[in-house]
Amino acid sequence: MASKKVLNMDNLNPNVITMQYAVRGPLPIRAVQLEKELAGGASKPFKNVIKANIGDAHAMGQKPITFIRQVLACVAMPKLMESNDMPKDVIEHATTILNGCGGKSAGSYSLSNGIEVIRKHVAEFIEKRDGYKSDPELISLSGGASESIRNVLKLFINKSGGKKVGIMIPIPQYPLYSATIEEFNLGQVGYFLNESNNWSLDLPELEKSYEESKKEFDTRVICVINPGNPTGQVLTKENIENILKFAYEKKLFVLADEVYQDNIYAEGSKFYSFKSVLMGLGEPYASSVELASFHSVSKGYMGECGLRGGYVEFKNLDEQVFVEFKKMTSAKLCSTVLGQAVIDTVVNPPKPGDASYEQWSSEKNAVLKSLKERATIVKEAYGNLDGITCNPVQGAMYAFPNVHLPTKAIEKAKSLGQEPDFFYAMSLLEETGICVVPGSGFGQKEGTYHFRTTILPQPELMKEMMERFTKFHNDFMKKYA
Amino acid sequence: MASKKVLNMDNLNPNVITMQYAVRGPLPIRAVQLEKELAGGASKPFKNVIKANIGDAHAMGQKPITFIRQVLACVAMPKLMESNDMPKDVIEHATTILNGCGGKSAGSYSLSNGIEVIRKHVAEFIEKRDGYKSDPELISLSGGASESIRNVLKLFINKSGGKKVGIMIPIPQYPLYSATIEEFNLGQVGYFLNESNNWSLDLPELEKSYEESKKEFDTRVICVINPGNPTGQVLTKENIENILKFAYEKKLFVLADEVYQDNIYAEGSKFYSFKSVLMGLGEPYASSVELASFHSVSKGYMGECGLRGGYVEFKNLDEQVFVEFKKMTSAKLCSTVLGQAVIDTVVNPPKPGDASYEQWSSEKNAVLKSLKERATIVKEAYGNLDGITCNPVQGAMYAFPNVHLPTKAIEKAKSLGQEPDFFYAMSLLEETGICVVPGSGFGQKEGTYHFRTTILPQPELMKEMMERFTKFHNDFMKKYA
Repeated sequence: MASKKVLNMDNLNPNVITMQYAVRGPLPIRAVQLEKELAGGASKPFKNVIKANIGDAHAMGQKPITFIRQVLACVAMPKLMESNDMPKDVIEHATTILNGCGGKSAGSYSLSNGIEVIRKHVAEFIEKRDGYKSDPELISLSGGASESIRNVLKLFINKSGGKKVGIMIPIPQYPLYSATIEEFNLGQVGYFLNESNNWSLDLPELEKSYEESKKEFDTRVICVINPGNPTGQVLTKENIENILKFAYEKKLFVLADEVYQDNIYAEGSKFYSFKSVLMGLGEPYASSVELASFHSVSKGYMGECGLRGGYVEFKNLDEQVFVEFKKMTSAKLCSTVLGQAVIDTVVNPPKPGDASYEQWSSEKNAVLKSLKERATIVKEAYGNLDGITCNPVQGAMYAFPNVHLPTKAIEKAKSLGQEPDFFYAMSLLEETGICVVPGSGFGQKEGTYHFRTTILPQPELMKEMMERFTKFHNDFMKKYA
Repeated sequence: MASKKVLNMDNLNPNVITMQYAVRGPLPIRAVQLEKELAGGASKPFKNVIKANIGDAHAMGQKPITFIRQVLACVAMPKLMESNDMPKDVIEHATTILNGCGGKSAGSYSLSNGIEVIRKHVAEFIEKRDGYKSDPELISLSGGASESIRNVLKLFINKSGGKKVGIMIPIPQYPLYSATIEEFNLGQVGYFLNESNNWSLDLPELEKSYEESKKEFDTRVICVINPGNPTGQVLTKENIENILKFAYEKKLFVLADEVYQDNIYAEGSKFYSFKSVLMGLGEPYASSVELASFHSVSKGYMGECGLRGGYVEFKNLDEQVFVEFKKMTSAKLCSTVLGQAVIDTVVNPPKPGDASYEQWSSEKNAVLKSLKERATIVKEAYGNLDGITCNPVQGAMYAFPNVHLPTKAIEKAKSLGQEPDFFYAMSLLEETGICVVPGSGFGQKEGTYHFRTTILPQPELMKEMMERFTKFHNDFMKKYA
């Protein structure tokens, strides 16, 4: 018998074993296999895999914004600034960034909280967006918003009271939260969004969830995703006010995940940042509710997921805690300087009159217009199918349709030891090549079944996807009727 | 009285409070302040700050390798490949990388373990270096080696046996280890390097440290840094063999930090990878000792710290554990694609006959030659001072001189509530602008006092640094004689 490994499943970090991250779970893994099988000449009932499982715009054919990539190329290779091909404002932006780098090279470590001039630009962006002051010293840049979210949640690991610290998260939620809570051995406190009212965030449900959690947990944090992922709703100002008042009352630290702030499609919907609503509430809220707000370069019109840029802005954080936060991030040295450079291009874009302005503006608007069109197409396409209901996609990049699975399908799934929505989504993948994520990966009310699909396939592919999907769905419903 | 914050020093993650990371601790923070004071016109006894505290080559004036930056610029902005200014092989390399990206854009998420073709190139690089097979599927790319080291250490968090898992680390060590061990609530098990034998790693000391640790910890990991940081020694093949046999006997998982593998300066010193030595040992070692080896683009001749590229290669890892490792990293999405591109340029550089080969080769050799010269200059300069002894810098980027502090200086430090080496290093900074890191940040035998300085200042600056240092040191020794 082979001797047991030093590190094995019996002594591996138990939280690593129990954590799940469905967006990159079994379905996407199978999707990659299918792609390889197709490339190897295997015969399948489809000619290509459509990855609607992840908000990865460029992978689905969206083109990068020229200005962003020009600045990036100049920062990477300053010699390019000597040529006549680079617009004047691109050179100015790249020069400003390089002047903030040690030895004027992106190859130098930055400060752990990020390059100073970029944090200054982030603060200016926030001030302009919100109409309230922002302090560059309370902003920390990171490799995507995910890293900042993980860093902030890490601060709460503490079982000195004998109970785990409870973190309130929406259900359905983006599984970064559930995975990180599990990994950090924190307590997950779900509050249900109201599907019948377009995934609204209702106060009585918050209250109920919080009160119930107290038996088991020391609940100290509430996370809100706005616009919603996977649910696509956009919170009203009034709703945010109520959440902030709730947080004040219950002494909760607020995490506001606002990475989809540019992705607003529905008529009448508007993005309000938690920071601006907090400041607008005045005292006692404005100077006491502790808030961490997150933004990213991965979504919006830029979709630069692979370049890893994001940030957190703190408000009302305890000063000493912030010193500790900075110390903690310093052991990770710094986030990618080129990712930081992309943040700069997003928060400090070309202005009217700048050489790059027209092109930047037209590229940006074209992406957002097209996303808006696809948000409508997707909602209507799913909404017209028997056995599916689908809320409108007010914002973000996803639809989260509710599939009314027939009893026979549910029984079939259970006989295979699978979640019914997993069974449905895996059948969809095997038969059509369309990869979505089952609702169970995000959480859903018991007895309901959903899947998350992105709205990112380009219009032609989207059309084809809906055709394949419609045929699959109708056949599936007939088969298990 | 202001009401207490939700998140405060009393309930903050206690491991965040206790962790320390001296490389970015109080001295570097003061150095940044001093720079600002100088820029603001303050009068100081020096005209510039010399940051010898961190292995940050570009910040100290080292120029990027042209080939690396050309590939990077093309990956960031593929349109550049249409111009005649880019060498043919640069275009080929960039095209290969982009073909591995979703939608052929660096803006797409990669697989969580990294772009497949780049992992393939890493495996080829390792095979060529070691003469033994390497499997791309057992390689995982990350944002610098630090991230991989943290990811691997995270696997060991487990207190099911009632004891913390003990991690053996050298003393002196690179504080990433002590900080991460503290953050993860693991147990630090230091083994002393033998300063009187040029920081050698002696078996009896390993044995002693391991046996003593068992009272308190379930010791399951040994970390080795080769070439050493901060100590600059290069392990012999025989030494590595003995460490591996020790690990086999005691059932320890081996972490081999080999980020300085290109930085070998001493005559007779040679880099042997733990993987190659393990394979060379044959059975029962070769197929049983669990090994994680780390490399980075931040050091070597490239010094691309800010671009964040690194990787881990596993050997003999439990298969199921590896599945869990990949699941865990998937929740972080992926490391920066441009950082991954840099890894590619390092493991798959131009070959003789390629358009870029001559320039690449001459730039690389010039950097390494200059580092070698500076390694000698530094050792000699420190070695010639009264009250300092300094081992040769066989490899890596640091000298770790031993300062024989006078009793009066030690008393003065204690009266200020400071570590004596901290007091010495802070005095050096305030009087000369030279920023080094006190030995207490790395660990040292009780009653000995060191500091770590990099060998990275360019030759002119290095000369000036040694002049300023010599004057300071002699005055200091006289003052406290």
